[in-house]
Amino acid sequence: MSDSEPQPARRGRWATLAALLGVAVMTTLAAPPPPALMPMPAVVRWGTGRLAPAPVRFAIVGHDDARLRAGLARALRRAEERTGFTFARRSDGDDELAKSAAEAECVIECAAPSLAIPALGEDESYTLEVTTERAVLKAPTVLGALHGLETLLQLLQWDSDCGWFLPEVSIQDQPRFPWRGLLIDVARHWQPTEVIERNLDAMAMVKLNVLHLHLTEDQGFRIESRKFPRLHQLGSDGHYFTQEQMRVLIAYAAARGIRVVPEFDMPGHATSWVVGFPELASAPGPYQIERRWGVFDPVLDPTNPKVYKVLEGFLGEMAALFPDAYLHIGGDENNGVQWNANPKIQRYIRDHQLKDNAGLHAAFNQRVHAILAKKGKRLVGWDEILHPDLPADSVVHSWRGPEGIAEATRRGYAAILSNGYYIDLGHTAAEHYLNDPAPVGSTLTPAQEKLVLGGEATMWAEWVTPETIDSRIWPRTAAIAERLWSPREVRDVPDMYRRLAAISQRLEEAGLRHESYIDPALRRLAGDGATPADLADLRNFVDLLEPVKDYRRPGQQPAATQFTPLTGLVDCARPDSAASRALADQVDVVVFAKSLAGANLDGIAQRLQEWKVLAARLSTGLAVRSPRLDEAKPLLVALINASEVGEEAARVLASGQAPAPGWLPVQLSKLEQAAQPHAAAELPIIAPLQLLVAAAAEQGRRAELSDEAWRQLLRTTVAPPAGAVAGAR
Amino acid sequence: MSDSEPQPARRGRWATLAALLGVAVMTTLAAPPPPALMPMPAVVRWGTGRLAPAPVRFAIVGHDDARLRAGLARALRRAEERTGFTFARRSDGDDELAKSAAEAECVIECAAPSLAIPALGEDESYTLEVTTERAVLKAPTVLGALHGLETLLQLLQWDSDCGWFLPEVSIQDQPRFPWRGLLIDVARHWQPTEVIERNLDAMAMVKLNVLHLHLTEDQGFRIESRKFPRLHQLGSDGHYFTQEQMRVLIAYAAARGIRVVPEFDMPGHATSWVVGFPELASAPGPYQIERRWGVFDPVLDPTNPKVYKVLEGFLGEMAALFPDAYLHIGGDENNGVQWNANPKIQRYIRDHQLKDNAGLHAAFNQRVHAILAKKGKRLVGWDEILHPDLPADSVVHSWRGPEGIAEATRRGYAAILSNGYYIDLGHTAAEHYLNDPAPVGSTLTPAQEKLVLGGEATMWAEWVTPETIDSRIWPRTAAIAERLWSPREVRDVPDMYRRLAAISQRLEEAGLRHESYIDPALRRLAGDGATPADLADLRNFVDLLEPVKDYRRPGQQPAATQFTPLTGLVDCARPDSAASRALADQVDVVVFAKSLAGANLDGIAQRLQEWKVLAARLSTGLAVRSPRLDEAKPLLVALINASEVGEEAARVLASGQAPAPGWLPVQLSKLEQAAQPHAAAELPIIAPLQLLVAAAAEQGRRAELSDEAWRQLLRTTVAPPAGAVAGAR
Repeated sequence: MSDSEPQPARRGRWATLAALLGVAVMTTLAAPPPPALMPMPAVVRWGTGRLAPAPVRFAIVGHDDARLRAGLARALRRAEERTGFTFARRSDGDDELAKSAAEAECVIECAAPSLAIPALGEDESYTLEVTTERAVLKAPTVLGALHGLETLLQLLQWDSDCGWFLPEVSIQDQPRFPWRGLLIDVARHWQPTEVIERNLDAMAMVKLNVLHLHLTEDQGFRIESRKFPRLHQLGSDGHYFTQEQMRVLIAYAAARGIRVVPEFDMPGHATSWVVGFPELASAPGPYQIERRWGVFDPVLDPTNPKVYKVLEGFLGEMAALFPDAYLHIGGDENNGVQWNANPKIQRYIRDHQLKDNAGLHAAFNQRVHAILAKKGKRLVGWDEILHPDLPADSVVHSWRGPEGIAEATRRGYAAILSNGYYIDLGHTAAEHYLNDPAPVGSTLTPAQEKLVLGGEATMWAEWVTPETIDSRIWPRTAAIAERLWSPREVRDVPDMYRRLAAISQRLEEAGLRHESYIDPALRRLAGDGATPADLADLRNFVDLLEPVKDYRRPGQQPAATQFTPLTGLVDCARPDSAASRALADQVDVVVFAKSLAGANLDGIAQRLQEWKVLAARLSTGLAVRSPRLDEAKPLLVALINASEVGEEAARVLASGQAPAPGWLPVQLSKLEQAAQPHAAAELPIIAPLQLLVAAAAEQGRRAELSDEAWRQLLRTTVAPPAGAVAGAR
Repeated sequence: MSDSEPQPARRGRWATLAALLGVAVMTTLAAPPPPALMPMPAVVRWGTGRLAPAPVRFAIVGHDDARLRAGLARALRRAEERTGFTFARRSDGDDELAKSAAEAECVIECAAPSLAIPALGEDESYTLEVTTERAVLKAPTVLGALHGLETLLQLLQWDSDCGWFLPEVSIQDQPRFPWRGLLIDVARHWQPTEVIERNLDAMAMVKLNVLHLHLTEDQGFRIESRKFPRLHQLGSDGHYFTQEQMRVLIAYAAARGIRVVPEFDMPGHATSWVVGFPELASAPGPYQIERRWGVFDPVLDPTNPKVYKVLEGFLGEMAALFPDAYLHIGGDENNGVQWNANPKIQRYIRDHQLKDNAGLHAAFNQRVHAILAKKGKRLVGWDEILHPDLPADSVVHSWRGPEGIAEATRRGYAAILSNGYYIDLGHTAAEHYLNDPAPVGSTLTPAQEKLVLGGEATMWAEWVTPETIDSRIWPRTAAIAERLWSPREVRDVPDMYRRLAAISQRLEEAGLRHESYIDPALRRLAGDGATPADLADLRNFVDLLEPVKDYRRPGQQPAATQFTPLTGLVDCARPDSAASRALADQVDVVVFAKSLAGANLDGIAQRLQEWKVLAARLSTGLAVRSPRLDEAKPLLVALINASEVGEEAARVLASGQAPAPGWLPVQLSKLEQAAQPHAAAELPIIAPLQLLVAAAAEQGRRAELSDEAWRQLLRTTVAPPAGAVAGAR
């Protein structure tokens, strides 16, 4: 607390006074919603009091070490930057700690150190008790204490009555799954150290504990090999982590309780391996780094002894560099083209009774497994490694579906889920959030459930640069982090979104740029003549856009390569539009109301009217002047048309009269037209508007139907069995 | 150019058509102001045609090397990100160059390589000819070609008629001074590699060629010493450049034609040296890293042989690490306290006939000079090294005033100017811009002028973090860069500001954050409940604030240390408020008009009315709710009061009647009150409002006075000889 700040004492007194006055005052205080904890702790009991946090003294009792001190220093720094307080420091720069718990308002009691390199299954639990007198954080290990500090920071809040405070609360917390990961593909588009570091900060904030680095791909070989320098020298365009940089990153992660699991994709997705070593491929070279996106032919030749010699050397080098006990070998999407076309390889399959390419892949994996076992590493690979010959201690990483998890664990393999967590595909936080590795009612036996280690969000990097990548990871990955940490029963979607908004702001404050990259990117797009009003309009417009979902972007940008600048409209649009979600919420309330008497149709109509005016203004203004906004024009027209359809539907609903015959198909067809993506972006508001139109058309039948039957009717109305309407999600 | 973009052909045809139609069309095209070149080239002749830049093919003829290729690749990448075009690339990722000049629309003709490590005085000239057919960039060396590419990028522009183009132009360019620097103090607040790299990018964009790294200070020792590791281990809190990182930075700079000159401050500003080596100080230790700001006692002991042993070892190590021929040893601000108090040192001065502390300092410099000479380095130091005993090949770096330059060059020393370029002190771009190292009418002889190597903007780091530092350097440093590059006669301030606004946007696009850090910082300050309207108001308000100037911030924040969070209102305010400048421009027009008949008094009144309403809304809204905006409240009151005074003055002017007696002193005293800084921020609009008030009071005398006499009268009215009104600048 800085000397010049007179308030803490007042706040301290206030808290004491409030405690004396008792429940009545407390109830007034407890009115705002509880602070946005994410992931939600296992057990939370809110009190009604408050602890004024400054001037606060911390004490560390029990175990104490450099990692804990550094974690506390980082936490206090973030608190300082947010609150403007300055916590006391010793002259050597360390935080000034109280000499005993009795002198401190904040006590950290840690029983034991954690492993220097975090390991799967370490105890990560903690408890946190905040009373009006003090906060006590207890943890069996330092990892638990670090998690508890993040929770403490999330508790810190203010209101206009009494400034900053911690609410009274009792928390017991531990993770549901021990493997809670984020995969970052640094190969397709290079992501330098600073991107990884800020994402490690973010991971720690939401209690993720595995950074999976996808280091090699057809489009790039991103790690320095001292034994085989041609790998990174010829395979990376000069963009790779040196071993020294990687050691620093691993230490950075370990300080935050995060493991770093490297992936070297093999035998497929291997073009960048064979640029420097064409003789390892299954067809003659030469090879160039792949610049396009997709699945390509180059694949290592499992029948070539030199392949194993290089792998033995390279994996030995990497096993020494990466201290984690797990090493990911990819193994996905070998298209078989080179193996099928190579008679020597096909003969080898016959000669060794390997049956088919899958058998050859399994034999390859056995050889790689043996190499890794010698180095003390456990093998992890994607779904495709699953095969009767796969060694029992391997871990299957499922990207293709929940069946992958079921099948792998049925056969006794440990498994990790990424299907449903493909954050690159543009789905909503809600969809990822409700995707459970071991959901209620799954067919997994208790023994199988034990083999489910957890999951990983996957940031594949075809369409991201260092400028945009944060916006494709955050804030949605915080919802996945909650799924993997919190109890299975925590699945209230509106409450998740409420908390996600606050966590998103904390992430920005910690240096992530998922929000703050947008305005500068829009200024570049708008060009130098744009006024602040132009830019505000443009911002409101892109807030209504989403990138096309799943694998539809290549269809929109067929000529795109690794070099295509990602500075267009779609790159400023983000998945899971909050503006569209707000409309969908309004529409849901109206459409499922038993009576339209109190329904807020005007609210919907007004929102749509504003969007229409916004789009019209941009259409005739900025989008005409700025050459880069050519691509916005069809989307602006679509927004105008869709808004008009929605306004019309609201009018029809308000009238209480069925529309004229033929009204419904005309409106739906207009919406279908407006749903067409342009420049890889689309309008997510189409789906709620379809619902509104259907409700308007069928309103006469609402009263007679149950909620479920009504929902079913609307669904059928929007998408008659004959064929789905494009753009509905 | 991507395949899916149909316009280039159209634009190409259009350009050809325009060329055929001749002058009439050309004149229409030439209507907008010329593109914002900065620094302004030595000779520019604008034509009237246009070259449509896509699909464009580049050719490199004559000398060709990796540095030139990399520079071209970076330039094309920036063009791609701005325009959305994709230039053709070879499968190895390099840009696809045309095989000959005849096949290219853009030809780079380079005569010879530059030195691998850029050196003072290398040829940096280039010529650039853009016709409607092609652009030809010629340079004697690669450095010149790199500069020419930056000019080419600045030429690139669009309009709504025909999209992107290069205007017809003929440019001959070379720098006025060979030493054009930016000093970054990485010691007081640590600035990591990514901050330095993005600032190197910015420097290259405005043709600065010296990065002066202030590496050691009382508050931090920021470079790894392998010979004396206690220096960085105990002196840096773990924040320092490893030698490997520094080698990467030096190469990054060299690739952009930028020299890296390191500074190791001695014998004063040396606290961080003596934390690890207390025996080198002139008083007994122990020492701790200094956490406050100012001038401190610790100073190396020039009478101690071990000092020279350590310096010999350390400077040898640094001379090998930093390839530049110049090495800066600081030498400033030894307060003499330790030397005066040490009888052994005072005896040494007497015994060696050194006369006084200055003599001892000179003797110390001679020893250091000898060490550096052995390593092939030229010594650079601040003003205080100037002494009759200073070796002749030393370079004097003047921070105290133009007299420093005059005195040093009179004695035959080469000199560099930083006085007037202290960008940390919050002055306007205009002030820095008009500060000339060798101005018209200076007393420097031609021989002395030759000794003026150039200048350096100095980013001292008491009050900046990696989050805010860009906003204290840019865009104002671009104006300094122009002063050091462009002809002395280029000094049109309004035109400079016009061009600076565009360059500022280009800098943001290149990754600088001097603008884009603000909105996230304001969101943090406003807190989670703030609406978009709140944030827009807050942004408009901080756009009207400036940090206090010169050395007044410590007085405002007396308890501040290295640990004080720099996330307050003042840290979101930036020097040289554009909003205030717009008011000042309006006021100037009105005040100096011969008649008020056509004067835009309503425009002024309306602007002030908007500010008043804005401040009132914030005062009763966001500033009440958010605890961190307590510090805004007095400034909001000041804005309301100052705006009212201005409105009143506009009314009085509009009335054409002299105000009542006593009106003037009341208004001026209200403005004086509103000029008081709070929380280290102040309102720069006070000065133009004082002028407006004075003009209103004295309007009856306008007609009878010459412009100069009127200006003088207003000045005296605002600040009567008895004493200056606070806050006037």
